[in-house]
Amino acid sequence: MENQPKFAVIGGGSWATAIAKMLCENQTEIAWYMRSTAAIEHLQTQKHNPNYLSSVEFDTNQLRLTSNINEAVAFADYVIFAIPSAFLGGELEKLTESLENKIIFSAIKGIVPETSLIVGEHFHIHYKIPYENIGVITGPCHAEEVALERLSYLTIACGDVKKAKTMAKNLSSDYINAKTSDDIIGTEYAAMLKNIYAIAAGIAHGLGYGDNFQSVLMSNGIREMKKFIQKVHKMKRNINNSAYLGDLLVTGYSVFSRNRMFGNMIGKGYTVKSAQMEMSMVAEGYYATKSAYMLNQKYGAKTPIIDAVYSILYEGKEPKKVFKKLTEKLD
Amino acid sequence: MENQPKFAVIGGGSWATAIAKMLCENQTEIAWYMRSTAAIEHLQTQKHNPNYLSSVEFDTNQLRLTSNINEAVAFADYVIFAIPSAFLGGELEKLTESLENKIIFSAIKGIVPETSLIVGEHFHIHYKIPYENIGVITGPCHAEEVALERLSYLTIACGDVKKAKTMAKNLSSDYINAKTSDDIIGTEYAAMLKNIYAIAAGIAHGLGYGDNFQSVLMSNGIREMKKFIQKVHKMKRNINNSAYLGDLLVTGYSVFSRNRMFGNMIGKGYTVKSAQMEMSMVAEGYYATKSAYMLNQKYGAKTPIIDAVYSILYEGKEPKKVFKKLTEKLD
Repeated sequence: MENQPKFAVIGGGSWATAIAKMLCENQTEIAWYMRSTAAIEHLQTQKHNPNYLSSVEFDTNQLRLTSNINEAVAFADYVIFAIPSAFLGGELEKLTESLENKIIFSAIKGIVPETSLIVGEHFHIHYKIPYENIGVITGPCHAEEVALERLSYLTIACGDVKKAKTMAKNLSSDYINAKTSDDIIGTEYAAMLKNIYAIAAGIAHGLGYGDNFQSVLMSNGIREMKKFIQKVHKMKRNINNSAYLGDLLVTGYSVFSRNRMFGNMIGKGYTVKSAQMEMSMVAEGYYATKSAYMLNQKYGAKTPIIDAVYSILYEGKEPKKVFKKLTEKLD
Repeated sequence: MENQPKFAVIGGGSWATAIAKMLCENQTEIAWYMRSTAAIEHLQTQKHNPNYLSSVEFDTNQLRLTSNINEAVAFADYVIFAIPSAFLGGELEKLTESLENKIIFSAIKGIVPETSLIVGEHFHIHYKIPYENIGVITGPCHAEEVALERLSYLTIACGDVKKAKTMAKNLSSDYINAKTSDDIIGTEYAAMLKNIYAIAAGIAHGLGYGDNFQSVLMSNGIREMKKFIQKVHKMKRNINNSAYLGDLLVTGYSVFSRNRMFGNMIGKGYTVKSAQMEMSMVAEGYYATKSAYMLNQKYGAKTPIIDAVYSILYEGKEPKKVFKKLTEKLD
């Protein structure tokens, strides 16, 4: 199997589309599941995803498009989940195909709301997938820049480094530099936590704090992230590697990040509900905030930024006051 | 003296103006030296610096303005140098007042071109100032945001922590949060090195690399900075503190940074000379690159980013080719 592994992408969004593009640079055929039959039809006739990264043209001979998740899973050895974490439960309920002997990669940067677990843990605990068959694909990587073929770096983590290498090889190209890691828990937590810091960055911006403060917030954020991840999964890791710090920066400094945008609206005075309605979606960091906060009740890491965001999003505290207090805790 | 210390600011640029503003929040009178008598006259009559941060209004009763550096030095216990490093030598030549018993703070983020030393070392070696009388004021802090009274954090380092505390107290206000550090060498090297990474960020941008790569560059940059500084001055420090990582981020991500702008022009195809002429100034990072590169011949830290910038600025290598090779060394 490892010689000619087959891949399936689960999801129809921008990150799923970017991953499909990367795989098509290396594979003659991939399976690609998306819910919307209209999007599939459009892709088949117009050669591009109508809703996301529509500038990316596909050779449809390379795509086994399907609106049946079981067909995609049956086709593949490696199944890559790239859907919002809030939809994962619903999609998995449709599965009749067994995930046994499948290698599951998560490209989801969030928490499964129903179980408050990161995706790898969710598959491990609820689907009995061993960690050597679970992997994570993390950035720093905006899908939009993959579409433009701008050089981007990925980190591919898996309990079994051989499988990480296979995945890395199949995502690599002229414009994708994929490295491997054995820190499957840490990279996934980092990918999830960074969205909380992006919300914090957005709130600060919305409240009128400037670039000087933003850099202080990010420098405190990475120190906080390090402490948190060390509590959850202690191992030797350099938190300044691209998968951790790089991923934090590309999200925290991006005006396109949905999490930052969500935070910005909160900082400007929107309620959580009205911000979510306005964006017609829920930012991943919203769930991540609650999960990280709850999880940390057990671990007790010092996380003033996560605590501040939690108190604003879930306890209705006033952003201005909360951030004023937060600034006294940062250095 | 420590009860009622007096302060002098040396310099007429934006950072000097920001520091004068901060001091005026705490002092009834400060000495402020600038070369330009026209600027002094304007300040005296119009209450603001005509050339930099002109929105900042001063109470001129608080200012002892002088175009004679010796008058300013004679007045003060604490002398803060905030001029481009290229002008430091010329200004110091004018000194007839002794610097003995003065406490010298550097707010210069660069290398003294004549001696290739950071400013603290320059004063220590060439003016016999003991390290307990030498200090550094570092960001992350754009002067423009001080003018707007946007919350900013400073780090004040000095061989004698008491003096660092005195300086921190006199710079602090509602919008300035100043903390102290005993890492006088490390903070000054960080302030100098970050300008090289800002040039690198500019070159990358000029060449068409995107935000994904920028985050990888910064995450590699902070790791490289850590290695370099550890070689120069080994001590326990958290490189992710605001004085190091924060300062790197505020410069590397700023479109206003002169170093980044300079790099951007180089990336877009300007020669070093034409970029300098176009900017009608020399970016601090230009000198810093040479000094850091030369210094590292002795230390041998692995510094692919500094090496790349050096080969472009001083060996006439083609930015596109150099960065292509650099991308293979980053992760």
